[in-house]
Amino acid sequence: MSSIFSKIIRKEIPAYIINEDDHFIAFLDAFPMQRGHVLVIPKKEVDKLYDLEADLLSQYLVFAQPIAHAIEKAFPCERVGMSVVGLEVPHAHLHLIPINKMSDMDFTQKKLEFSPEEMEAIRQDIIQYL
Amino acid sequence: MSSIFSKIIRKEIPAYIINEDDHFIAFLDAFPMQRGHVLVIPKKEVDKLYDLEADLLSQYLVFAQPIAHAIEKAFPCERVGMSVVGLEVPHAHLHLIPINKMSDMDFTQKKLEFSPEEMEAIRQDIIQYL
Repeated sequence: MSSIFSKIIRKEIPAYIINEDDHFIAFLDAFPMQRGHVLVIPKKEVDKLYDLEADLLSQYLVFAQPIAHAIEKAFPCERVGMSVVGLEVPHAHLHLIPINKMSDMDFTQKKLEFSPEEMEAIRQDIIQYL
Repeated sequence: MSSIFSKIIRKEIPAYIINEDDHFIAFLDAFPMQRGHVLVIPKKEVDKLYDLEADLLSQYLVFAQPIAHAIEKAFPCERVGMSVVGLEVPHAHLHLIPINKMSDMDFTQKKLEFSPEEMEAIRQDIIQYL
């Protein structure tokens, strides 16, 4: 069965896309923990990130790097945290989250809700720095 | 000023080392959140992981991959979570943590304490699968 992320990759459901290439796509997390929370995923559907073949693994952080820098510029923060949990969607995904304190990366916290207009504004804020 | 991690890299202070090569070293986190919690760090002292040059970034997850698989075999779990926070030690580090539920990766939780004998046993449990 297709993951919801595969449907985003195939553009069957909409997402606020930040960047994509042949192997990866980045878009705003629909259930953000912070303003500027982005998911970076491989287009290949693999449950666990560390089960990707080495060739794709080697490109993963290189693809994510300019996005992390752009998030940091768009949403001033102590730094951009990175996390791979994967207990909810069985398609490997790397969270990029602007953080100022440890608890900003606590996945059990209540998620934020933004209107479509706010999500699009957040997307624009990030991509202007790419 | 040298980070505590740089002292581990130079073997000036001891650590329970899992693996190392020219550019990376992995060792047990001294303040583990779970049994089998490993840190993977670049030998180059850089504060933010995403400020590493692309060549090192491309090798990072490839170096971490077999360690994640070994942790998963040594400590049966739903999966191995990965996290880069970096608010405490200004030397980029990737956490590899065996998890079964979201809260297992909550960095605000109380850390575990193991005796030197237990730490060495955990190290052996992991490296047998490398």
